[in-house]
Amino acid sequence: MSGLDLGHLRADTPGTARGIHLNNAGASLMPRPVVEAVKAYLDLEAAWSGHGAAEREAERLVGVTASVARLVGAEPDEIALTESATRAWQMAFYALARGFRPGDRLLVGRQEYGASLVALRQVAATTGAVIETIPSAPDGRIDVAALAALLDGRVRLVAATAIPSNGGLVNPVAEIGALARANGIPFLLDACQMVGQRPVDVAALGCDLLAATGRKFLRGPRGTGFLYVRRACLERLEPAMLDHFGAPLDGDGYRLRDDARRFETYEHDHAARLGLGVAADYALGLGLDRIAARIGELAASLRQGIAALPGACVHDLGPDPAGLVTFTLAGQDSAAVRAALGRAGISAGLSLHAAAPLDAAARALPPLVRLSPHVYNSADEIGRTLDVLARVNRGEFRP
Amino acid sequence: MSGLDLGHLRADTPGTARGIHLNNAGASLMPRPVVEAVKAYLDLEAAWSGHGAAEREAERLVGVTASVARLVGAEPDEIALTESATRAWQMAFYALARGFRPGDRLLVGRQEYGASLVALRQVAATTGAVIETIPSAPDGRIDVAALAALLDGRVRLVAATAIPSNGGLVNPVAEIGALARANGIPFLLDACQMVGQRPVDVAALGCDLLAATGRKFLRGPRGTGFLYVRRACLERLEPAMLDHFGAPLDGDGYRLRDDARRFETYEHDHAARLGLGVAADYALGLGLDRIAARIGELAASLRQGIAALPGACVHDLGPDPAGLVTFTLAGQDSAAVRAALGRAGISAGLSLHAAAPLDAAARALPPLVRLSPHVYNSADEIGRTLDVLARVNRGEFRP
Repeated sequence: MSGLDLGHLRADTPGTARGIHLNNAGASLMPRPVVEAVKAYLDLEAAWSGHGAAEREAERLVGVTASVARLVGAEPDEIALTESATRAWQMAFYALARGFRPGDRLLVGRQEYGASLVALRQVAATTGAVIETIPSAPDGRIDVAALAALLDGRVRLVAATAIPSNGGLVNPVAEIGALARANGIPFLLDACQMVGQRPVDVAALGCDLLAATGRKFLRGPRGTGFLYVRRACLERLEPAMLDHFGAPLDGDGYRLRDDARRFETYEHDHAARLGLGVAADYALGLGLDRIAARIGELAASLRQGIAALPGACVHDLGPDPAGLVTFTLAGQDSAAVRAALGRAGISAGLSLHAAAPLDAAARALPPLVRLSPHVYNSADEIGRTLDVLARVNRGEFRP
Repeated sequence: MSGLDLGHLRADTPGTARGIHLNNAGASLMPRPVVEAVKAYLDLEAAWSGHGAAEREAERLVGVTASVARLVGAEPDEIALTESATRAWQMAFYALARGFRPGDRLLVGRQEYGASLVALRQVAATTGAVIETIPSAPDGRIDVAALAALLDGRVRLVAATAIPSNGGLVNPVAEIGALARANGIPFLLDACQMVGQRPVDVAALGCDLLAATGRKFLRGPRGTGFLYVRRACLERLEPAMLDHFGAPLDGDGYRLRDDARRFETYEHDHAARLGLGVAADYALGLGLDRIAARIGELAASLRQGIAALPGACVHDLGPDPAGLVTFTLAGQDSAAVRAALGRAGISAGLSLHAAAPLDAAARALPPLVRLSPHVYNSADEIGRTLDVLARVNRGEFRP
C-alpha cells in the first residue's frame, strides 16, 4: 500500500461508498476536506456575500497560490490560478502568439490535446506561423533526437503533453525541457494528467510554462486550473487579454503586474479556488511519491489483467506507463463496454479521437475504454472490475 | 412591497439573519435555492465525479442557457456562459478587436469599468485603433446627440455601461442602441448592475453584445457570468481564444460552432453554472418589474435620508436613478464610514477610482460609500442604517 492507509483514504472519499470509480483521468472523486471547504465557503458567502466572505478569508485565499506553488516546486509569484487548464494553456499560448511572425515554426508533440490544436491552428492562420508535429519514437514517446534535429532559429515554441489523456504514455519531459532551454525556445507543457498523479518539479522538467487542471488526479473541484510561468519567462509575456487586476491602469496606459497573476482576472470563483488549495495540500500531505507508487501498482494490475483477456488489446505506449489504462476488446464497441461497466457500478472513461487527434490519426485508434485508478481504489475493486471485463469479453453483458 | 412577500424573501435568504446587507452592487446574498443547488451538485460530484454528475444532470445543465436567455429576452443560441462578466466582456471585445485597423475609432462611455479600459488600451496599442470618450450630458448620462455627432465610417465600436458601479446613473441604452444599429456599428453593453435589478430586453436595448455577471443583483454564485451575442452579429465574430468545444477540429482546420457557445470552453464549473440558472429562474419567478420597483423604493428612502444629513453629499446622477446610492460625509473618510457601518453590522460598498476611472477623473470623485439594497432588505433595515449614518455623521462612531 505504499505507506498509505486505504481505510482512511476511502473513509475520506464519500464517492467510494457509491461505486467503483476508475475515471480519475476524467475527473476524480474529491476527498471530503475539499468538498467541505467549498461548501463551507459557499455558506460563508450566503451569510456575508461574495465580497464579505473574501474579506474574512483573505489569508486562506492567498494561501492557495502558495499551496499550488509547493505542489510543482515553483515560487508563488510564478503561479496564476485560472478557471480551467484550458484557460491556463490558452493564456500562455496566446501570450506567446503575440510575438509570432509568418514562417515561425511551432513544434508540437503528437499527443497534444484537441483544444490546444484548435488554438494552434487559429494562431497559425492569423500569424502565418507553421505548426509541425514532433516525431514520436517507436515506443510512442516524443523522439528527443528528432526534436533536436528540428530546432533552428525560426522555432518559437515547443509544446508537449506530459501524459496524454488517451493512454499511459509518459513523455521524456525533462529531456525535452533541457533541449528547449539550451536553445532558448519557450517550452509549454500540458501537465493535466501528471499533476496530482506523480511528483512534479518545474525546475527538473525544465518547462517555461505549465498548465494543469484541478479536477483530475489532483482531486480538486471543477472550475479550477493553474498556470506556472517561469520567472525569467514572465517578463517577456503580456497576456492576450487583460483586466485591471492583471494590469492596473497607469496614467494613460496600464502597468502589468510583475508576478504571474497578470494572467488572472480580478473576478473568479473563490469557493472553487479554496477547494483547489485544499486539494493541493491534501496531495502534498499524502506525498506525491506514495500517490504515484500506489496508482502505478493499481494500474499495473489492471493492465496485466486486461492484457490476459482473450482478444483484448492494451493501447498504452512507452516504458513505465502512468495510471491511464486504455484498451479495446475484440469485436466490441468501446462505448458499449464502458456502458456495461457503468451498469455494473464501475465508472470508466472513453477516449475519443478529440483527446489527442494527431496521435489517434497516426495510430488509427478506435475509441478506447480508459480505466484510471487512484489511491482510494482497492485491490478488490480492481479484481471486481477485471471480473466484469472478463464477462463483458465473453459477451455476457451485451445490452 | 410591490407585491413581494418580504417575510418569505428573508426566510429564503440565510444572510439576512446575519446582518444588514447593503452591498448588492458588489455581491448580493444568494437565496437558499441557489446555495442548495450548488451544494447538492457538489455532493453529486463527490459521489459520481465531475463527469458522472454532468451525465446525470445533463438536462438541467443545458437548461441554464435557456434560463439566462429568458432573463434577457434572447434565444438560447445567443447566450454563452462564462466564468465572469469580465471574461464575457473580454470574449466579445477581443473578438471584435481582431478586425480593428490603425485609425479605427472606439467610442466608449465615461462610465466604463476599469477592467474594460485596460483591455481597450491594450488593443489600441497593438492595433492602432483610437479610444474616444463619448461626452456625457449635464445630467451625467451619455449624451446621445453628442454620440451621433461622433459617428463616421471609421467607428468600429460603441461601448457603454448600462448602470455604472459608482452610482445610480442609468444610461439611455435604448437610444444608444438605436443609433448604433442605424449606423451598423457594433454596440457592446456592460449590463453587470442591470441584470437582476431591472427588466432587460436585448431587443429593446438594441445591443449587439451584452456582458453580465451572476454575483451582483442576480444573486447567483461567484464564478459565473454570461455573454449575449445577437444572432446577426455572431456570424462575423470569431473568438480571440478557441478550444475544441467552441470550434471542433475539421480536417486540417476547425469549424466554429454556429451558436454563441463558440465563446465558451469545454471545461467549466458545472456547480456554479447550475446555481446561475437557479438564480435566473428565481429572479424571473419574482418578476423583474417587481424587483426593480422594490429596489427603487428602498434606494429612494436611503438616498432621501442620506441627503438630509448635514454635510452629506449624494453623488448619484441622472433621472430615475437605480439601486446604487453613493455618498460622502463632510470631513469623513469614506473607508472609515464604511468600516463604521461594518462595526454596526451593516455591509456597505466602497466605490474607488478604478470602478469607473474616466468618470471619477471627470468628476474629481473621492472614494464614495455605496449602499445598494435588494428586495430582501426591510424598511426597518433602511431606518437602522440611516440612524447609524446620522451618528457617524455626528462623529459618534469614529474608530
